[in-house]
Amino acid sequence: MTISTKALQKTGPNEPFEVVTIQRREPRADDVVIDIKAAGICHSDIHTIRNEWGEAHFPLTVGHEIAGVVSAVGEEVTKFKVGDRVGVGCLVNSCGECEQCEAGMEQNCLKGGVGTYNSTDVDGTITQGGYAEKIVVNQDFVLRIPDSLDFDVAAPLLCAGITTYSPLARWNVKEGQKVAVVGLGGLGHMGVQIAAAKGADVTVISRTLRKAEEARKLGASRTLATTEEEDFFRNHRGEFDLILSTISAEYDLEDYLRLLKPRGIMSVVGLPPEALPLRLNRLVGGGKVLTGNNIGGIAETQEMLDFCAEHGLGAVIEKVGVDEVDAAYERVVAGDVKFRFVIDTATFAEH
Amino acid sequence: MTISTKALQKTGPNEPFEVVTIQRREPRADDVVIDIKAAGICHSDIHTIRNEWGEAHFPLTVGHEIAGVVSAVGEEVTKFKVGDRVGVGCLVNSCGECEQCEAGMEQNCLKGGVGTYNSTDVDGTITQGGYAEKIVVNQDFVLRIPDSLDFDVAAPLLCAGITTYSPLARWNVKEGQKVAVVGLGGLGHMGVQIAAAKGADVTVISRTLRKAEEARKLGASRTLATTEEEDFFRNHRGEFDLILSTISAEYDLEDYLRLLKPRGIMSVVGLPPEALPLRLNRLVGGGKVLTGNNIGGIAETQEMLDFCAEHGLGAVIEKVGVDEVDAAYERVVAGDVKFRFVIDTATFAEH
Repeated sequence: MTISTKALQKTGPNEPFEVVTIQRREPRADDVVIDIKAAGICHSDIHTIRNEWGEAHFPLTVGHEIAGVVSAVGEEVTKFKVGDRVGVGCLVNSCGECEQCEAGMEQNCLKGGVGTYNSTDVDGTITQGGYAEKIVVNQDFVLRIPDSLDFDVAAPLLCAGITTYSPLARWNVKEGQKVAVVGLGGLGHMGVQIAAAKGADVTVISRTLRKAEEARKLGASRTLATTEEEDFFRNHRGEFDLILSTISAEYDLEDYLRLLKPRGIMSVVGLPPEALPLRLNRLVGGGKVLTGNNIGGIAETQEMLDFCAEHGLGAVIEKVGVDEVDAAYERVVAGDVKFRFVIDTATFAEH
Repeated sequence: MTISTKALQKTGPNEPFEVVTIQRREPRADDVVIDIKAAGICHSDIHTIRNEWGEAHFPLTVGHEIAGVVSAVGEEVTKFKVGDRVGVGCLVNSCGECEQCEAGMEQNCLKGGVGTYNSTDVDGTITQGGYAEKIVVNQDFVLRIPDSLDFDVAAPLLCAGITTYSPLARWNVKEGQKVAVVGLGGLGHMGVQIAAAKGADVTVISRTLRKAEEARKLGASRTLATTEEEDFFRNHRGEFDLILSTISAEYDLEDYLRLLKPRGIMSVVGLPPEALPLRLNRLVGGGKVLTGNNIGGIAETQEMLDFCAEHGLGAVIEKVGVDEVDAAYERVVAGDVKFRFVIDTATFAEH
C-alpha cells in the first residue's frame, strides 16, 4: 500500500507552495519509512523549482536535507529499526555496480544516481523531496544521525555539511594549514566550522566585514573584506593552502588563485552562472589546483555526521513553518539568513 | 678568473644567432664548471628570445636543457668531481631557505628562483644559458646523468622530461590507469614514454593521425584524432584518469574536462596565449581537477633522470650544429620536429 503524506508542493515555478497530500511508494523489502522532523532549505531547491536549472517536473516537492525517525522498515532491512534517528541527503539511489558506486562515490554513479527530488527513479517515477511529513527510502541511502545532533541542526548537514566536508577531507586539511572560506552563507558557515575542527587556521573572505562576529563564533581566526582593503588580492597573495569558494555570483577566478601558496588548492562548491576566464599560466606557475565538489558518497556522509557529532558542530539555523517557506525563499535569494532555514514539519499539523 | 666560453648569442629578438665569446663567473667554492656536450632547444627559449614573454635582456644566450662533463670544481664541492656526467635544467639558484625550497620545490621558491637564462642572479648579473661550450653552476643545481643516457638524449630531459614527469608522479599515475597525452611534440613525446613506463594505458590525442606510428613506438596504445571523428568529445567522455595537455594554442578546456572520469585530473603543461572560458560546474560535477605544472624541484629532477635511465627512456632528437639554430627555431614554430632539436656543441669548434 502506498503511503500518504502531507507535503509542500508547487505546481509551477511561479506558483506558491501549497500543503497537499502526496503518495510515497509502497515500501519495498529494503525500504525505510521515515517520519520527517526537519527539512533544510537549500539554494538548490530554489534553483530547481524556479526552473533556473532547466525545466522541473511539476507538480514537485523539493528538499534534500532531511532528518527524522524511522517509523517502519521492510522485512529485509538490516541497517535500521523503528525509532532510529536518521537522515536522507541528495541521493536516494544509484546503480550500485559501477566503479564509482563500488568506490563509495555514489554521487558520481556512471549510470546517473537518483536525486532525492525531480529525478527519475528506477521505477520511472519522479522523486519527491523532503518538505513533507514522511518519505520512503532504500536503506542504503539512509544515514544515521548521532544522538547528540538535534534534527533541525542535523538536517542541513546532509547537503551543506557534506558538500563542504568532502573537499576538506579529500584534500586532507589539517592542523597548521591556512584555509580560506569565501562567502559565509549556508555552505560557508559549515566550511568554517569543519575546517576549524580539523585544526586549520580559518579565514573568512567576504565582500564586507558585516558577518565578522559570526565568523569568529564559527571558528574563523579572522575575516577579510575584499572591498574594504586596497590591493586586496595582491596583499594576501600566497597565503592559503586551500580556498573553499562558495561564491555563486560571477567573480575573478584568477584573483583567488593568486591567494594560494604554491601547490595550493582552490575547491569550488558555489556555481557562478557564467563561464569565467582563466589563463592557464595561473595554474602552471606554482602548480596550483582548481577543483570542484558536489556532495559526497554515502559512507563519507556518515563519516561527516559522526565528525560533526564528535566535534559538536551543526548548522546554525532559523526555523520556519510550512506557511513561511515562500517568504524564506525570498530571504535566501536576498542573502538574508544566518545561516540556514529549516522547515519544522510539526507545522504540517496546522493543515 | 672568469671563464671564457663560446656561446650562441642574439643581440635582439629579430637578430640571428651569432657565435661569440662570453664570460662565465669566476667559479666560487661551491661551483661546478661544466663542458657542455649537448643543449636542447625548448620552445621557451624561442618565446623568451623573441620577446614573446616580455622584454628579454639582450645580448642573450638561452638554453636550459644542458648536458655535459664536469671540468673543474670549487674547493667546497662535495657532490661532483672532474669527469662526472652532469646536467643543468631550468634553475641555477634559489633562496634555499623558504618553505618551498626546504620542501624540495625550488621551482616555487618564494623569493623567486634564478632561471638558467634571462634571470637576475643573486650577484645582479643576468644569467646566460646553455647554448655554449661551458657553464658555471652551483653544485646544488647540478644533476647527475646516469651512464646509460647519452648526452643528447639526456639534455631535453632537464626541461621536457621533468615537466612531464612531475605531474605524472605528483598524481601517482600507475598501472591500469588510462592516461591521455594531448599533443605529441617535445613535451608530449616525453609524457607518453614516462606514463607508459609507469604502467599506464596511454592514448595520444592529436588533431590528426599523422603521428600515430611514432606514438605507438613511444609506448601509446592508440592515437585518437579530434578532427577525424564526429562527436569526438562526446564519444570519449569519461575515459581518462589523467589528461596531460601540452597544447599551446587556444582550445576548448571544457571539451577535455568531459573526457575525464569522475575525480579525474587534467594537468596542463602547455600554455595557450589567451584566457580560456570555464564553467565551474564542469569541475564540480564529478569532482574533477584542473591543474598545471612547471618543471620540478632538483631532487625530483634527479629522480626523473634515474627513472628514465632505469626504463631506457630518452628524448627522440634531431641534432643540429650551431649554424643551424635559426633554421631549427623556424621548424619548431612550424611543429616540424620529431621531437626535440639538440645542439651539438662540438660544432662550436668550426668557429
